[in-house]
Amino acid sequence: MTSSEFELIQHYFTGLGEGAAVRLGVGDDAAVLQVPEGHVLQISTDTALEGAHFLANLPAADIAYRSVMAAASDLAAMGAVPMASLLSLTLPKADSAWLRDFSTGLGAVCTETGLPLVGGDTTRGPLAITVTVMGSTPTDQFMTRSGAESGDRLCVSGTPGDAAAGLEILKGDLSVADASISAVLAARFTRPVARLILGQTLRDIASACIDISDGLLADAGHLATCSGVAIEVDSNLLPLSDALCSVVDMQQAKDWALAGGDDYELLFTLPCDTPLPVGCTQIGRVVSGSGISCDRVPERAGYDHFTH
Amino acid sequence: MTSSEFELIQHYFTGLGEGAAVRLGVGDDAAVLQVPEGHVLQISTDTALEGAHFLANLPAADIAYRSVMAAASDLAAMGAVPMASLLSLTLPKADSAWLRDFSTGLGAVCTETGLPLVGGDTTRGPLAITVTVMGSTPTDQFMTRSGAESGDRLCVSGTPGDAAAGLEILKGDLSVADASISAVLAARFTRPVARLILGQTLRDIASACIDISDGLLADAGHLATCSGVAIEVDSNLLPLSDALCSVVDMQQAKDWALAGGDDYELLFTLPCDTPLPVGCTQIGRVVSGSGISCDRVPERAGYDHFTH
Repeated sequence: MTSSEFELIQHYFTGLGEGAAVRLGVGDDAAVLQVPEGHVLQISTDTALEGAHFLANLPAADIAYRSVMAAASDLAAMGAVPMASLLSLTLPKADSAWLRDFSTGLGAVCTETGLPLVGGDTTRGPLAITVTVMGSTPTDQFMTRSGAESGDRLCVSGTPGDAAAGLEILKGDLSVADASISAVLAARFTRPVARLILGQTLRDIASACIDISDGLLADAGHLATCSGVAIEVDSNLLPLSDALCSVVDMQQAKDWALAGGDDYELLFTLPCDTPLPVGCTQIGRVVSGSGISCDRVPERAGYDHFTH
Repeated sequence: MTSSEFELIQHYFTGLGEGAAVRLGVGDDAAVLQVPEGHVLQISTDTALEGAHFLANLPAADIAYRSVMAAASDLAAMGAVPMASLLSLTLPKADSAWLRDFSTGLGAVCTETGLPLVGGDTTRGPLAITVTVMGSTPTDQFMTRSGAESGDRLCVSGTPGDAAAGLEILKGDLSVADASISAVLAARFTRPVARLILGQTLRDIASACIDISDGLLADAGHLATCSGVAIEVDSNLLPLSDALCSVVDMQQAKDWALAGGDDYELLFTLPCDTPLPVGCTQIGRVVSGSGISCDRVPERAGYDHFTH
């Protein structure tokens, strides 16, 4: 009693499911995972829809890659070590070429993140990808959004704003003469890198952490709300990449860094006497009060699925 | 920096997230769960789409209820004790009345199953509900589909076929004069009950287990394939409910029991000398070989999203 649904899943999505934590992978009613002794489990889920979260013409391998990385970035923000992932895939049709390309990106991202694919579901409908990821930390050592205190430094990893530029390039709204710079920025959107190792390092030193998926200011706002503090951001301190600064003026670069979203960098707070980790930049500070303030108000202030 | 997306989620889906295993619920980058010492984690995900998995006019409370129960049934089939759930909800619009009704059903099912809602995602698009559930068992005591052996008894819980009759009633394709019988059968589709306690009991005695979501024969086929055995089903032994038998003839009742799907009963195998649990019925046996055989071949042989 085989059926094409089960064959599809088996053909393309098995062989990605091996890992130290995996007791039972794809193919039973549930997957079985072993959480290390003395550890707690972190779990998060993200849905990506064609049109809303990625362009209709994005290659299937990139869709798979960035869907899993976006979910993995939530584990990074908690300081978790990746354990396993689940994929719920809704497809308009069972297209072998698309599935083959998708599974190539999926295989790459599962290997790079250490998130073996242990289960999921396949249904027919408008293209949608829901990725659930699991990780673990020692029992009392996960980060949250709620520990920032007045006097802390506000810091960010990497060079935010690149992904927004990449998206504009992919949409055809930004033309870049230098092909290699164009490719670098586009890849920052299609192939983001979750800061998993940095997250595990920050676990011991950061007072609060969040990943930048909605946009730096929007996510700083979430962090401020959860921590019951105010946050001041200085746009002159933003670590803008050379690539970004070479393709747009400084004001546009700052706006994308502040509000572009999709960067999957970590935004975190450090006690004032704690040294910055390599590759990170102080961009503001935590003060008493509520809300965020910034010397610039960018046009697009964070992604919201129900207001635009 | 509040936004309507975050407000929606907070307003309707918080307050459902408390449970013994929950260290951190909705509102951070990931939820944090404590798996009991000496236990492993079971995890499963199910997507339900309007049209494919439920009727467009099904009340939102029922959509929520059966989506979570369908996922919980996978935990039952593993013998797992429920821990927590995640919900990814894709909605065409942010309709407060619909969300209120949905959250009523969600609250009921989370409480009844012991699956507090600890996280999720909300996006805008065609209605889709992806539920991820987590549970735990002692490390080496979970059930799988793969332990059935020649000589075992094939058994089923409850009265399969009722949900298929209920769906026909809801679609208007089956007219039932007696309102109470009609309501009972319809509720078997809209308000299924995952056999969680039975599953935990079976952990000590069953050689293999699966839940009936695709249809009894289809799921028996999965069990046979995973176990490397053949399974014989005797349709004369099917435990058909009085309600079902009062609304259709015996042949139709048998066909729905064999192939209707959506029952969320447990289908399991027991060594021949093991007594049957209360509420369960032997309907066949395990023999050497492969595939399934049955004295009846129903018209609809298991749900497949890509072949109909």
